[in-house]
Amino acid sequence: MADLSPFSVLVTGSNRGLGLEFVRQLLELPKPPQLLFATCRNPSAAQALHELSAQHSSVRILQLDVENSASIQEAFVSVKDQLEGLGLNLLINNAGRVIPNSFHSESAESMLQLYQTHVVGSLKMSQTFLPLLKKAAQMGPQDSLSCNRAAIINISSTGGSFTELLGWEIGPGLSYRCSKAALNMLTRCQGLILKEEGILCAAIHPGWVQTDMGNCRGFLAPMKKEESVQGMLKVFSTLSEKNAGYFFDWEGKELCW
Amino acid sequence: MADLSPFSVLVTGSNRGLGLEFVRQLLELPKPPQLLFATCRNPSAAQALHELSAQHSSVRILQLDVENSASIQEAFVSVKDQLEGLGLNLLINNAGRVIPNSFHSESAESMLQLYQTHVVGSLKMSQTFLPLLKKAAQMGPQDSLSCNRAAIINISSTGGSFTELLGWEIGPGLSYRCSKAALNMLTRCQGLILKEEGILCAAIHPGWVQTDMGNCRGFLAPMKKEESVQGMLKVFSTLSEKNAGYFFDWEGKELCW
Repeated sequence: MADLSPFSVLVTGSNRGLGLEFVRQLLELPKPPQLLFATCRNPSAAQALHELSAQHSSVRILQLDVENSASIQEAFVSVKDQLEGLGLNLLINNAGRVIPNSFHSESAESMLQLYQTHVVGSLKMSQTFLPLLKKAAQMGPQDSLSCNRAAIINISSTGGSFTELLGWEIGPGLSYRCSKAALNMLTRCQGLILKEEGILCAAIHPGWVQTDMGNCRGFLAPMKKEESVQGMLKVFSTLSEKNAGYFFDWEGKELCW
Repeated sequence: MADLSPFSVLVTGSNRGLGLEFVRQLLELPKPPQLLFATCRNPSAAQALHELSAQHSSVRILQLDVENSASIQEAFVSVKDQLEGLGLNLLINNAGRVIPNSFHSESAESMLQLYQTHVVGSLKMSQTFLPLLKKAAQMGPQDSLSCNRAAIINISSTGGSFTELLGWEIGPGLSYRCSKAALNMLTRCQGLILKEEGILCAAIHPGWVQTDMGNCRGFLAPMKKEESVQGMLKVFSTLSEKNAGYFFDWEGKELCW
């Protein structure tokens, strides 16, 4: 297992929860990223990110709303400028949300909303940042795929796994489950398409984590975010071409779809 | 295996392709439906349906656009009136489409479009027609689930199966695959939720069929629609509570997600 040491990383939804914890722990790696693009919808309210960026010049806070193509494009231009000819090694599509509807209250709006965030957002991120990921792939070691070379990690959930249906006991959450199943399919397909370009794509289940999202419906999630992200970063360091397009949990176990 | 003999059936997208063939073959059953609601977006252009309805008083042509909640609601009111207090036994969510984009040309619009048609449309149909399906379930035999009693069949595709990825050689079709994976998840969840109400929900893969949709990108699909629908109707006759929320092909083989 190689150390996780990408030169540049971009994390969406990094103002809180798992996204913020990714930024924190990436900064504590033995070889932290030289450029860590911490993106969120509303940087002016991202107090914790600003504290980290005051201590670490590598942290670059950027406005990015994954539901808005123009916003993704603007962030791309800024990231490209700051990379000064280098590529982007690791894109973590972490931005997510949940709408805890019942079967009867699930609406067209809630269904489309979560599909837009989880699936369309992740696809637009991959499409838009592809030139920078390809550049990283071309400049990295040519013999294998890895998160140090060029990778897209989609933060998914076994809530969208047909065999697991995590959290069924607290509600059907159709908008969440359908969008995460679709995100897994996007990952499966992108894994096949992008490995030809030297880019690894995989999905990861972070566990059921104590965040604003994980603790929905008054349920206390069983896992701490520190443990989840520690596990995921360790998994990232182990991923290679044989894992392209697959789905893992925070402990590295390959999951059923 | 019981004969397939639902009193009332509704088919979406019934003006051509598999939908039209469903109407044709349902009419040829030993005990055909007494009320067969053949719905489509534009009835005035549905020549073949009008010919069938001229020969069979059971065929009721209705305007229904699964992407439009108001249109679904209007169709519901008409179906309820025509059922005169009886329930709807079988809902076949057949309306579908494909947009043969490459990875690069797939857009937010194409992604959302197919999700709306396949997933949101099927959910809205189930939610809206639920009172009539529940009525059928209450009036039918209480000991088992079946397509004669009360059922929702979602026409899906192994194009949205993680293990099969049908048609990968002719294109990624991300909007199609992601929406069909999500439709399968909807089916999985509805299967669990609705069996408590006496309603069977399952997904079926019709095969790769010679329709306008199946022959996309100049590819001649291998199967005739007559054979596909003949197989699916036979499968419908065999489905029971143990199949709720599962995914089958036109020959009755249970499929991997």
